[in-house]
Amino acid sequence: MDYRQWERATEWPLAGSALTFLAIYTWTVLSQPTGMGARVAEYAILGIWTLFGIDYLVRLALAEQRTRWFFLHLHELAIVALPVLRPLRLLRLLTLISLLQRSIGGALRGRVVTYAVAGTSMLVFVASLAMFDAERAAPAGSIKTFPDALWWAATTITTVGYGDFSPSTATGRFIAVGLMVAGIALLGVVTATLASWLVQKVAEQDDANQAATQQQVAELTFQIAALRTELALRPE
Amino acid sequence: MDYRQWERATEWPLAGSALTFLAIYTWTVLSQPTGMGARVAEYAILGIWTLFGIDYLVRLALAEQRTRWFFLHLHELAIVALPVLRPLRLLRLLTLISLLQRSIGGALRGRVVTYAVAGTSMLVFVASLAMFDAERAAPAGSIKTFPDALWWAATTITTVGYGDFSPSTATGRFIAVGLMVAGIALLGVVTATLASWLVQKVAEQDDANQAATQQQVAELTFQIAALRTELALRPE
Amino acid sequence: MDYRQWERATEWPLAGSALTFLAIYTWTVLSQPTGMGARVAEYAILGIWTLFGIDYLVRLALAEQRTRWFFLHLHELAIVALPVLRPLRLLRLLTLISLLQRSIGGALRGRVVTYAVAGTSMLVFVASLAMFDAERAAPAGSIKTFPDALWWAATTITTVGYGDFSPSTATGRFIAVGLMVAGIALLGVVTATLASWLVQKVAEQDDANQAATQQQVAELTFQIAALRTELALRPE
Amino acid sequence: MDYRQWERATEWPLAGSALTFLAIYTWTVLSQPTGMGARVAEYAILGIWTLFGIDYLVRLALAEQRTRWFFLHLHELAIVALPVLRPLRLLRLLTLISLLQRSIGGALRGRVVTYAVAGTSMLVFVASLAMFDAERAAPAGSIKTFPDALWWAATTITTVGYGDFSPSTATGRFIAVGLMVAGIALLGVVTATLASWLVQKVAEQDDANQAATQQQVAELTFQIAALRTELALRPE
Repeated sequence: MDYRQWERATEWPLAGSALTFLAIYTWTVLSQPTGMGARVAEYAILGIWTLFGIDYLVRLALAEQRTRWFFLHLHELAIVALPVLRPLRLLRLLTLISLLQRSIGGALRGRVVTYAVAGTSMLVFVASLAMFDAERAAPAGSIKTFPDALWWAATTITTVGYGDFSPSTATGRFIAVGLMVAGIALLGVVTATLASWLVQKVAEQDDANQAATQQQVAELTFQIAALRTELALRPE
Repeated sequence: MDYRQWERATEWPLAGSALTFLAIYTWTVLSQPTGMGARVAEYAILGIWTLFGIDYLVRLALAEQRTRWFFLHLHELAIVALPVLRPLRLLRLLTLISLLQRSIGGALRGRVVTYAVAGTSMLVFVASLAMFDAERAAPAGSIKTFPDALWWAATTITTVGYGDFSPSTATGRFIAVGLMVAGIALLGVVTATLASWLVQKVAEQDDANQAATQQQVAELTFQIAALRTELALRPE
Repeated sequence: MDYRQWERATEWPLAGSALTFLAIYTWTVLSQPTGMGARVAEYAILGIWTLFGIDYLVRLALAEQRTRWFFLHLHELAIVALPVLRPLRLLRLLTLISLLQRSIGGALRGRVVTYAVAGTSMLVFVASLAMFDAERAAPAGSIKTFPDALWWAATTITTVGYGDFSPSTATGRFIAVGLMVAGIALLGVVTATLASWLVQKVAEQDDANQAATQQQVAELTFQIAALRTELALRPE
Repeated sequence: MDYRQWERATEWPLAGSALTFLAIYTWTVLSQPTGMGARVAEYAILGIWTLFGIDYLVRLALAEQRTRWFFLHLHELAIVALPVLRPLRLLRLLTLISLLQRSIGGALRGRVVTYAVAGTSMLVFVASLAMFDAERAAPAGSIKTFPDALWWAATTITTVGYGDFSPSTATGRFIAVGLMVAGIALLGVVTATLASWLVQKVAEQDDANQAATQQQVAELTFQIAALRTELALRPE
């Protein structure tokens, strides 16, 4: 079994695990289970962590250029190894989007937009959960309910930043910086998609000055080839 | 009567209804009528709602691919069915802009700019109204006058976000998120229009390295055709 | 004397008047002169206003399509007629920039950047002055010194919006909205200039796949013309 | 020794000096040494300042068009001459990035991204240090710890601007304006890179309508040349 095959085979199971993790994580953060429930959730999260860990090790083993792969996938090592980065494991769910898109198909710009919308929604939800979890118990914190956390995430990712709610703990601030960076990227994606669309449309409208297409030149080449054939066939 | 004809026939009446709705909505929010006035406004809004409902049903009936149409127009169903989304019905007024533009004509970039300016102004006005309506009675709310709501909307759509006024109710926050998303889109439109203009201008200035146009290649093709004719006419 | 000649002849004097207006405006706002000084400043501002008014009327009289000109220059009428919009008269100074650039020359992108930098600096300065003037006496205002007004303008035009200072009067908020819109435009100009530069550079680097230039096609056309001449000269 | 050679020879030593300056500056700001330590740091900073001063003078002497060079490098004079701008000397470290990149190579867009990421990280770190240094002793200041300064820098460069921390001193506000401008530039770079990538990808996908490449036209030219040769070789 090679690297590509392993990736194909584990795509759906791992996306499912990430989804399960999201469900359990949401549940534990929002309803703070105790006793039996807490223990089951803990074991489930441990199980999913093991799956991700095994996947990491197998891919490391199957990689053709192992050292290169190791350095290019340092972020995955960090996500697997550090419990603090646990919520980032959910980025795996973006694979789910790419899986759905592969079945739908569609143009590049449409795919970029889908990615941006889905990724942003997921990021806002996960960041709100993590922020709520981090700030809930902080004495100086202002984000005390999950709706407040969602509202905070919306004002942050759009770079509006009212400041009516803002993180006070170190964990919360790390999450916030991540969301701000995502906000800048989101702004960039929206603008770039619009710009690319406008550039194309404006070029299409400008009929007379449109760039010569490869098709046209191919036709021209065919004409000259025909000319050569005609000459060759003429009696000398 | 087919789908296209129905749309053409209802364009102006529906835009007019949306405009009437805007006027009544503005009046009820700002002067909070009671008694007779309130009842007339209520009936008028009910009447306009019926018009939009009929239009939705007729278009659903006339659509060629009904299931496909249904899913592509889910947002219209939501606007018709949910009273909470009532203000969004005003998005119909954007049709008015496109109607005006059809009569004026003009280049793509100019149309994009008109759309952005008109859409933004309308959105700021409607969002301010809805926000004022939502926050006015909230005990923890800070937006207590319509000018404050307008000022809040301006700081939000430009993503400045001073935070001197910010929504405290769930409805208010939903409106705010809508305005923030519109703000990001606005930023994107402004930047993309400028970028498209600059890319075109820079390309035009760079005379010597300008891309070969289709016109030029067409001329070349004509030259070769002439050559072939000349050869054909020569005595062998 | 026709429209163009009048514009050429009044370019420098009007830019000078605007500069004088800026100096007097800055002086009256910052040192609030009384008695003799105040009266001199008043007369000077009245004189400059007369100059702008005469220029407006003469250009209206010289315009070829008077009604069209009138509607395209409605903003100038507003600036001349409404004392509230007085500070906007300083936009005339942007002519000064274009005058300087005409003597320097230079590429389009460079000119866009110069315009953005100079226009932004001027706008920040003038908006700070107007804001300081508007908020100074407001009981609920927080902007009480000119440096605070400058700081507020910087946080607003960059859309950062800390909210430590924000306008409380209607005049102040109108100025703020103007500055926010300028901020969005500034963001757009910076991004568009960078994007246009990158698009060009990336296209230049990609040697093998560069678009065929008009020069190349012109050469090709010359080759075919030469071929036709050769054929024509051959004995039949 | 000419200008280019001097620049090549001093690249590494000056980048090293800037790095040393960064280390000493960080140390003095964070641990506020007294006695012996303070004096050593002072002498080291004086020594580095001398190095930068000598480099400035030598380059001024070696420049071909001295007056032109002087005006194009006014910012360097300011950094060398004014102790207030001391932290800006660290911009020298950007040379380090370009040195590293020269050894790695890579495409234009990749280099732009590396520059943006490295430059932003460095700027955030240095601005936080300078801000902490400026605000620490200010009675009205809110930024009292280095982590708070880092958090403030992150909310500022992303233009989020919660306003939970904002500078109160003149020095602090100058640093803040610098960071805001950097934030706008960062947004521009992110968006422009994405736009340039999208424009290219969309153009590549659109196979049939792709612009004719220079390679194609070169092939066409070769075909016509072959045709001329054939004609020339034919017996007349």
